[in-house]
Amino acid sequence: MLVVMKSHATPEQIQAVCDHIEQLGFRAHPLPGAQRTAIGITGNQGEVDRGNIEELSGVAEVIRVSKPYKLASRDVKEEDTIIRFPALGSHPGATIGGRDLAIVAGPCSIESRDQAFAIAEYVAQAGAQFFRGGAYKPRTSPYAFQGLGLEALRIMADIRSRFGLRIVTEAIDNESLELVAEYADVIQIGARNMQNFSLLKHAGKLRKPVLLKRGLSATLEEFLMSAEYIMSEGNYEVILCERGVRTFADHARNTLDLSIIPAIQRVSHLPILVDPSHGTGKRDSVLPMARAAVATGCDGILVEVHHQPEKALSDGPQSIYPAQFVRMMDEIQQIAPIVARSLPRGIRIETAAG
Amino acid sequence: MLVVMKSHATPEQIQAVCDHIEQLGFRAHPLPGAQRTAIGITGNQGEVDRGNIEELSGVAEVIRVSKPYKLASRDVKEEDTIIRFPALGSHPGATIGGRDLAIVAGPCSIESRDQAFAIAEYVAQAGAQFFRGGAYKPRTSPYAFQGLGLEALRIMADIRSRFGLRIVTEAIDNESLELVAEYADVIQIGARNMQNFSLLKHAGKLRKPVLLKRGLSATLEEFLMSAEYIMSEGNYEVILCERGVRTFADHARNTLDLSIIPAIQRVSHLPILVDPSHGTGKRDSVLPMARAAVATGCDGILVEVHHQPEKALSDGPQSIYPAQFVRMMDEIQQIAPIVARSLPRGIRIETAAG
Amino acid sequence: MLVVMKSHATPEQIQAVCDHIEQLGFRAHPLPGAQRTAIGITGNQGEVDRGNIEELSGVAEVIRVSKPYKLASRDVKEEDTIIRFPALGSHPGATIGGRDLAIVAGPCSIESRDQAFAIAEYVAQAGAQFFRGGAYKPRTSPYAFQGLGLEALRIMADIRSRFGLRIVTEAIDNESLELVAEYADVIQIGARNMQNFSLLKHAGKLRKPVLLKRGLSATLEEFLMSAEYIMSEGNYEVILCERGVRTFADHARNTLDLSIIPAIQRVSHLPILVDPSHGTGKRDSVLPMARAAVATGCDGILVEVHHQPEKALSDGPQSIYPAQFVRMMDEIQQIAPIVARSLPRGIRIETAAG
Amino acid sequence: MLVVMKSHATPEQIQAVCDHIEQLGFRAHPLPGAQRTAIGITGNQGEVDRGNIEELSGVAEVIRVSKPYKLASRDVKEEDTIIRFPALGSHPGATIGGRDLAIVAGPCSIESRDQAFAIAEYVAQAGAQFFRGGAYKPRTSPYAFQGLGLEALRIMADIRSRFGLRIVTEAIDNESLELVAEYADVIQIGARNMQNFSLLKHAGKLRKPVLLKRGLSATLEEFLMSAEYIMSEGNYEVILCERGVRTFADHARNTLDLSIIPAIQRVSHLPILVDPSHGTGKRDSVLPMARAAVATGCDGILVEVHHQPEKALSDGPQSIYPAQFVRMMDEIQQIAPIVARSLPRGIRIETAAG
Repeated sequence: MLVVMKSHATPEQIQAVCDHIEQLGFRAHPLPGAQRTAIGITGNQGEVDRGNIEELSGVAEVIRVSKPYKLASRDVKEEDTIIRFPALGSHPGATIGGRDLAIVAGPCSIESRDQAFAIAEYVAQAGAQFFRGGAYKPRTSPYAFQGLGLEALRIMADIRSRFGLRIVTEAIDNESLELVAEYADVIQIGARNMQNFSLLKHAGKLRKPVLLKRGLSATLEEFLMSAEYIMSEGNYEVILCERGVRTFADHARNTLDLSIIPAIQRVSHLPILVDPSHGTGKRDSVLPMARAAVATGCDGILVEVHHQPEKALSDGPQSIYPAQFVRMMDEIQQIAPIVARSLPRGIRIETAAG
Repeated sequence: MLVVMKSHATPEQIQAVCDHIEQLGFRAHPLPGAQRTAIGITGNQGEVDRGNIEELSGVAEVIRVSKPYKLASRDVKEEDTIIRFPALGSHPGATIGGRDLAIVAGPCSIESRDQAFAIAEYVAQAGAQFFRGGAYKPRTSPYAFQGLGLEALRIMADIRSRFGLRIVTEAIDNESLELVAEYADVIQIGARNMQNFSLLKHAGKLRKPVLLKRGLSATLEEFLMSAEYIMSEGNYEVILCERGVRTFADHARNTLDLSIIPAIQRVSHLPILVDPSHGTGKRDSVLPMARAAVATGCDGILVEVHHQPEKALSDGPQSIYPAQFVRMMDEIQQIAPIVARSLPRGIRIETAAG
Repeated sequence: MLVVMKSHATPEQIQAVCDHIEQLGFRAHPLPGAQRTAIGITGNQGEVDRGNIEELSGVAEVIRVSKPYKLASRDVKEEDTIIRFPALGSHPGATIGGRDLAIVAGPCSIESRDQAFAIAEYVAQAGAQFFRGGAYKPRTSPYAFQGLGLEALRIMADIRSRFGLRIVTEAIDNESLELVAEYADVIQIGARNMQNFSLLKHAGKLRKPVLLKRGLSATLEEFLMSAEYIMSEGNYEVILCERGVRTFADHARNTLDLSIIPAIQRVSHLPILVDPSHGTGKRDSVLPMARAAVATGCDGILVEVHHQPEKALSDGPQSIYPAQFVRMMDEIQQIAPIVARSLPRGIRIETAAG
Repeated sequence: MLVVMKSHATPEQIQAVCDHIEQLGFRAHPLPGAQRTAIGITGNQGEVDRGNIEELSGVAEVIRVSKPYKLASRDVKEEDTIIRFPALGSHPGATIGGRDLAIVAGPCSIESRDQAFAIAEYVAQAGAQFFRGGAYKPRTSPYAFQGLGLEALRIMADIRSRFGLRIVTEAIDNESLELVAEYADVIQIGARNMQNFSLLKHAGKLRKPVLLKRGLSATLEEFLMSAEYIMSEGNYEVILCERGVRTFADHARNTLDLSIIPAIQRVSHLPILVDPSHGTGKRDSVLPMARAAVATGCDGILVEVHHQPEKALSDGPQSIYPAQFVRMMDEIQQIAPIVARSLPRGIRIETAAG
């Protein structure tokens, strides 16, 4: 159920409608748009009596939402969601979802301070605005490297200060979620946890952007329902990420499903990134698929970069070299204007290598 | 890495080998077999120096395990794992994995005391040894019924006392895991959490059997690696459960992949049940697939039964009626001897309905 | 569109309705049932004016068929289709689709007269009523053995005379179709040709039973639409065959989808067999899945048997040994009564080996 | 097996090696490259004695090919295959596989002369070099429009003369293949016939380029093995076409698997086009996926265009409007240089609309 306020509705009128909804035992989600504010109602098992609400002052219309996802739907919010990150000292602000393509780059795992700083310097120089690195690693085998945990979070906090890169890192349970929220700018929820509903709810209670990766066999609707779990708790800053799905095809680690981008954009206002590293699992396919993703019209790229991938503790074969990352940035910069996007000028720092 | 002890090795010799392994910084998992004890070594990133271990007294052989799963493998433990539940007052003991087929039946969700008791009485009379019912429900939508939580656990504890049925119920996060472990006989980990590695590790620290459902797109190896996560923490009582995988086929909710049963049985000693309710999503297909599962050679059936499925708060369309459950029990009782199995005589209680 | 005749309608009335339909430019398919005859109308792009037809004498009702398949649907023919094969000299008749389970056994390819006769003798003794053997082989590689062609057909004709086994063999194009129809009792159309519509139409013009294998990624509806292609040309003797579908799962060559059996039986009157050899690709899984298929309620089994599978020119790893075939027959004979089926007594011949 | 000739080997030496191979009972496939000629050997079940061949004059090396596909492999022919179409009167020549992107556009089915000419005029003006239109339609339902057959071929022959567009149209069996080869410039083999090996062999005997669409569940290896079937008969002009595969995803008709493009290009010299129309099944997704395909590095686009898609007899919902086609051409023209491609200048004809 959705309450559409009149375009000249006052903040007081909006608040009064929210109060009324909450008194009925439901939850109100005011969602300001460019033209007018809409208020999503959740928590209702069945029908809400619309009569009373329609009579409140400032209300233009009460409409039923037929899709199972509401807050993630364009029915509720027509304008694209843009997630804004303020300036960090001398480093300019950044966005995900707007005209600027968001570039999130870094190693699969934080392995050491030296490794992380070396890679961060490369990607910052080449124009990435976000740094990714795993502190808590969900590995298929209990005997594989599980991440450096808190130590990795601290290294990444120092990378933020040093290079002005915002930090994106994964939380794997409610315990790590608290720490990740403390140190990172964006909380990643991995593909294997896309339907870990307990984790989604906890992430929804935080007020930090969440990057939600598509599950290995998730339909579009299930993907948006998982975003809805986060949003239904009041955290509306959800970034979707396509990272390949599981099919019979064996020429790549996963099948990158780029056609979900226009399909998502038709029904949802949430931004969507593409991860061509997990999406293919093969270094040689990362650049072609990164170009393709940008040409499709996605909001940015999440990519694994490693300066010594042959020594990486995880995902070496799909990590690209710094020189390939530079080439990738150059290529997508050329494609961006064709889809009305741009790449903000790379952050330049003075280094011996620079 | 696996240390095979001589058949006449003493408990002291076994302990000495374990101590030696732990001193090397690894973890020792003594696994007693019918003929001899094997000791699994985990925690080693690479190679363990086998020389010293082979010279310890009582050691027959040290062998490398080539599969990524070790403790779940028949290489490490050749005999089938049988999980034993002791007698409950006047109610006899039960097993999962032995000659007796394990029958786990009950509603998708515990909706009320009356509903749960009514169904429990039906399934106990018809010969089920285990009762299933959801207290914490992982639902695709945040707006759907999420389960009664602790109240449901208490209702099921009373069902155990009243009908002698062991309780199988799902934990969805580390918080609910503690409570489920306190009230239930078997902790279920659902398909969507099959690669929630944090939850698997926590379940591995408990000393309660864990029923692990196959993920929607999990390969055989991934399935066993998730079992390995639990076992690597010292909890060796893992029960696998096939519940259908996601494919292009649209005539059923999932595609029940029965051929994984002989495939698992070749490589692993763990018992495997089949859930034809989630496996098909259609009431009319549950009995045919339950018969098929038993004919394939599985260790038991997990099935949703509801006396009023049209009123069920979840999974109504796939829940069978009590009369269908009785027919299912009759049919699988006839198939059981063909695969060298049997159905223990049904628990009979005196009731008006009886 | 379907014309249901009154139960006492005369053959003349049925003929008159058919003539009327044909005059309208459509095609009439009279389908006699136990109670009454129904007449399917095909060839209409859109709506047929039902008014005139309803007024013809003997007509009970004219109903629209909403499913895209008509002749294959239970709407058009409620009773199960039973395909009858008359006695062959001293060898009794056989059926597919009735109470008797149909057992089709033999090698993947006919490699030589000796090989084929040796295997035929084994399977005949163990009770198979049908012999399968490839004369024209659709192989993935152009460099692999492509079958003996006409020579193989002649060998199989001699097997029919000698052992009383009906012959099932595959046609791969319109050319081989003519020859197969001349020599075989059942024309097989393989999974890779399930949507070779030209071949389906040609097979529909013949008056020989057609065994249609499910395509590797065919939905239930596509499967029945391919049967419909054959039936729309007037050949109503179509036998469906589930042989596994392609999924991400890698523990078997294909994923045998047994849940399609009850799903097909709900909507179609056509018989359905199961091929556990292609369905699994692994000898050790053939017996468990054959048992499961019979327990599900299928109409019979198609299985690859070879006395020297290690020397087979194709599909050796999935062919069972004669001794395993005997065991399979014994096991499914025990399961059959539980699903109201039986295995007709094996054909016994006098041989040195017998 | 592959014979690599010295770079200065004479035509006589090459012929002598071929003769020798044929005398051994094998088949020789001379494949001229930029530097040297290689000669593929097929028809050998096992090992060919390489000794004698290596001693023939002009032979540099004899190497074993480990992949199951040989003629389609870069091992046998390192340079990209470029298929050349000579000038048609005043209309310039065209290529598939070279620097120029090949654009194949037209309706799903030829419905009438007027419809076909209207669409041909639009696509010719916008720069397509090839016209696609179905004469023989493989439809899932026997009751759906099956194509105009020979009449459609004649209409397309007139379109070639009038607009200088080369004709690409599908053959569905050996009968239609003869006619298609007579009228068309490129013979299309559809996804559902990708493993119709009889049709592949017949197409291999012709000397006309063949456009081979990927099957709905074909792996990369199976796709190339089907190309190999055609090539093993001596027709080396095979054009691959990705058109989406079947997965669980339901937001598009198929899942367009663009990552197969770099994967194919690594192992095969054959050109590969992309069909975003069948690949998505949704008009709104065609342009995004066409852009993505070009950005990935494919050799061209095959797209359905209709001036009145709402009236189309087949595939209306996925056909784009002429204005969208113009926009698509404009967008991919901008992307082309980034992947070292170009779009040859559109054919301009004088029309009232022009």
